[in-house]
Amino acid sequence: MTYCVAIRLDTGLVFASDSRTSAGVDDISIYSKMHRFETTSNRVIVLLSAGNLATTQAVRNQLQRDLENPQAERSLNVLAHLDEIANYVGDISRMIQESVTAQAEQHGGFSTEASFILGGQIEGGPHDLFLIYPQGNYIAASTEKPFMQIGETKYGKPILDRIITADIRLERAARCALVSMDAAMRSNLTVGPPIELLLYRAGALEVDHYMRFDEGDEYLIRLTSAWAEGLNRTFLELPKFEWE
Amino acid sequence: MTYCVAIRLDTGLVFASDSRTSAGVDDISIYSKMHRFETTSNRVIVLLSAGNLATTQAVRNQLQRDLENPQAERSLNVLAHLDEIANYVGDISRMIQESVTAQAEQHGGFSTEASFILGGQIEGGPHDLFLIYPQGNYIAASTEKPFMQIGETKYGKPILDRIITADIRLERAARCALVSMDAAMRSNLTVGPPIELLLYRAGALEVDHYMRFDEGDEYLIRLTSAWAEGLNRTFLELPKFEWE
Repeated sequence: MTYCVAIRLDTGLVFASDSRTSAGVDDISIYSKMHRFETTSNRVIVLLSAGNLATTQAVRNQLQRDLENPQAERSLNVLAHLDEIANYVGDISRMIQESVTAQAEQHGGFSTEASFILGGQIEGGPHDLFLIYPQGNYIAASTEKPFMQIGETKYGKPILDRIITADIRLERAARCALVSMDAAMRSNLTVGPPIELLLYRAGALEVDHYMRFDEGDEYLIRLTSAWAEGLNRTFLELPKFEWE
Repeated sequence: MTYCVAIRLDTGLVFASDSRTSAGVDDISIYSKMHRFETTSNRVIVLLSAGNLATTQAVRNQLQRDLENPQAERSLNVLAHLDEIANYVGDISRMIQESVTAQAEQHGGFSTEASFILGGQIEGGPHDLFLIYPQGNYIAASTEKPFMQIGETKYGKPILDRIITADIRLERAARCALVSMDAAMRSNLTVGPPIELLLYRAGALEVDHYMRFDEGDEYLIRLTSAWAEGLNRTFLELPKFEWE
């Protein structure tokens, strides 16, 4: 399993992803699910992925090959708008899934599905975020629903529902993404470190901050301890029942 | 959908349940999912239910009929141990599901499944909690895993994972159940009020406190506001990134 979350704020974008993949409890590995592409300097493109690892790797490889191919009709460099890129990634994902579906059905019907969150900015356009479904279609983030999740999404959603609005600071949203990730890791063993975190400030056309937190990372421990202490303190201060 | 949670502490039991049922977004109703049975005075039995409403109602009706039948070989009064009662409830649930499975398959394959949490105490025995699966088998709570959930369980799990241990006070666990319920309600529209809450103190052989919180209940609003404020305050105090 996987957990990825991305947030579109008025002032920029936040991306967070875990790194655990599991093909059964005896086959657990570490793979990054956050990919930054070396595009031309007029754009920043970040891709988060969840689902079948063969599919997500094949999609990333195809995107990379197109990027390096000066004759490519569509690539992360050639396309002029982010939603066209979302469409392009969706097409590649669907084609790759279709190419292995026959084998998948033959070999016990494992799922070849994959989902993606695509975010970034192209010079002259707004910063934006898209969730690309396994079927290849996609939706954009909105002001009312500024965050998107893929993978094991439910454990980490309540804290996002409470804290995230489009007008909060980039750093606050980034901390919220880490707390949301921590909730998913505690409640589901198939979500695990290292955690990757990326902050993009709107208009910058380059990554603001990228961090990778390994297990036992000093900042992550301070953050989750402070969070746990704050929750416990809040609990002690909750209004008592009338009979207490 | 439904969300129910029960907690087994050293000092007693806590039960909480929502009351929303939905058979499609245009068919939403209010049904209690917490049932106390009028048993003999040497026992307290509480049943929480999730799943197909026809199944859960039929199970409750059968339990009630057996209870009122002095010739019944098995009933909530006749059985001497809580785990026998869990087994008995599981048997009834499975039989009722089997009796409608043929029709279910004929009419588009809707699910007749139901899950239950059974808790209480019989004089001379310990207070205990069981989760009864749709297949009729069941598991007991443990000291390491003192809470059980049925229905839409994931949204409300992280806060239980953080706060609940077997040695905390009954009232603290009850507040945690309410906060967990609030998280599920915020993140999933098919979980909704009124919320029922029941506290049982070990050895009492009668319900300690029962409360029903309607939408807009004054205590519930104070509780969730204090919780939201505490989370926001905690967020402001989280350790900053090094560049801030």
